[in-house]
Amino acid sequence: MIHLAATVGDPTSIGPEVASQSIPKFLRENPSVVVHLFAPRSVLKNLKHARLEIHDHRDSKSEKFVPGRPNIKSGARALEDLWIASEACIRNYCDALITGPLDKFICAKTDKEFTGHTEFLQKRTKSDGTTMLLASESLRVALVTTHIPLKDVSKNLKKEKIEKTILRTHQFLKTFSKSPKIAVCGLNPHASDRGVFGTEEQKIILPAIQSLKRKGLTIEGPVSPDSFFHRAENYDAVICMYHDQGLIPLKMKYFYEAVNITLGLPFLRTSVDHGTAFDIAGKSKASSLSYAKALEYACQWAKRFRQKDRGST
Amino acid sequence: MIHLAATVGDPTSIGPEVASQSIPKFLRENPSVVVHLFAPRSVLKNLKHARLEIHDHRDSKSEKFVPGRPNIKSGARALEDLWIASEACIRNYCDALITGPLDKFICAKTDKEFTGHTEFLQKRTKSDGTTMLLASESLRVALVTTHIPLKDVSKNLKKEKIEKTILRTHQFLKTFSKSPKIAVCGLNPHASDRGVFGTEEQKIILPAIQSLKRKGLTIEGPVSPDSFFHRAENYDAVICMYHDQGLIPLKMKYFYEAVNITLGLPFLRTSVDHGTAFDIAGKSKASSLSYAKALEYACQWAKRFRQKDRGST
Repeated sequence: MIHLAATVGDPTSIGPEVASQSIPKFLRENPSVVVHLFAPRSVLKNLKHARLEIHDHRDSKSEKFVPGRPNIKSGARALEDLWIASEACIRNYCDALITGPLDKFICAKTDKEFTGHTEFLQKRTKSDGTTMLLASESLRVALVTTHIPLKDVSKNLKKEKIEKTILRTHQFLKTFSKSPKIAVCGLNPHASDRGVFGTEEQKIILPAIQSLKRKGLTIEGPVSPDSFFHRAENYDAVICMYHDQGLIPLKMKYFYEAVNITLGLPFLRTSVDHGTAFDIAGKSKASSLSYAKALEYACQWAKRFRQKDRGST
Repeated sequence: MIHLAATVGDPTSIGPEVASQSIPKFLRENPSVVVHLFAPRSVLKNLKHARLEIHDHRDSKSEKFVPGRPNIKSGARALEDLWIASEACIRNYCDALITGPLDKFICAKTDKEFTGHTEFLQKRTKSDGTTMLLASESLRVALVTTHIPLKDVSKNLKKEKIEKTILRTHQFLKTFSKSPKIAVCGLNPHASDRGVFGTEEQKIILPAIQSLKRKGLTIEGPVSPDSFFHRAENYDAVICMYHDQGLIPLKMKYFYEAVNITLGLPFLRTSVDHGTAFDIAGKSKASSLSYAKALEYACQWAKRFRQKDRGST
């Protein structure tokens, strides 16, 4: 059996409804999977399934969470569920983690050092670094830099960082494909047009590509970002230098179905690619497509990974 | 009659073939238009039409241009044709200019100061500034900054520059729509998430928007770039802070049919949205869709502009 750990994120967000909508259908379609959902029972209504285990560590009906009304308590609860769910993965009770949306500002009221899911998990697992990969059906983008001001992107690009991003992506893709094909974007307009609009392509990006090509990886680049994405789906993944370079094309085409994957942890973590959407929480307006895709992606990966693991031993 | 001035760009590029393919069809569909094509006759083969006037100022068959073999002469010829075609627009003989692709490095061998079509035309017409707008059937993006290194974008954003970009775009759109609806992108991931990843939204972009809103323009923003483009087609245009912010989404979806429009000149100029493609020149492989769209766009604009002009006098 595959065991997946899941959270709803902030219990007053759209998390509980998108999880409740997608989990039963997902379990029906995947008979060899058990989902462990770490969340307050009170926000899950009639969610039941033989292969669903709800872990409500407080198990009290006194905690009231009102959809669309986040507060310090709902933020604290999101953090507690995340802590326990990740513990289940660290101890190898579960194969992968699926997380719902939370508000980092609200969570920071409880844990001052909290800046987001990824940073939290990286610290907890003492990982040396993580890579954010966003995946849809046919386009996957991995980010070298994430949530930093655009003006700081250039100084945050280092050969080693680009190499690690490519290597983590390559390792992930190898679970699905023997010889993954990766494209690496340039940073500047037209990938600097032979050095006319910037030097990062020649000085940082190209050396990183060349060093990994020598190790046998199949990599193309630095490609011109603007003219590349119409053919990006011929590659297993695209390495992007900054947040919007990857997320603008991904979300333009796959707004409701992109999954956020964290690479570099001891376990795979997938997440919805949307926020808390407090404004529509509890109104049955939210699309559960991204949560469903996050479950599916984690499950596919865990199955393949296990097969490969068995195959190689 | 509408009179359009057109060039093929570098005579050894794909310019002559895409112009030759699109002009006859365009003229059949637009009976009230005359096209003035400024180009060497020798590269146009059997191109003929009652409403096509070929202006070959050298009119010699001695000049040989081989497709895919650019040189200093082909670059010089591109510049000469551009000079004469723009003269026809400056003198009001023609209503708009359509340009084919040229290689700025090759042209710079003849004119050391040449850095591109737009800069050349801005200087020739002593215009105070221009805006590059890229248009497809349903998505139009206008750029505040264009061909500069990504790390220099932030310091090149000024409130006045953003205002001028919006105003030029608004003026252009008014030819087509009474009350154009414009969206303005932020610069940083999530438009800086309330100032967490950068300050340009609050300090530069928002003040520019507010100042023009007070003048009665319909503007939304700063919008979060990554989550905006899937709904961008509900707006008449999107103002983008840097080259790839606009061109990645535009070219991803409309790779072969985007038109490059220069705003801020005394006449409208449209251009193909592709390069010289010397590698496939003369091989009948090039798509003429962009040249055809550039003709159509210039023509539609000129017709509307004349109607409006008549209407208001």
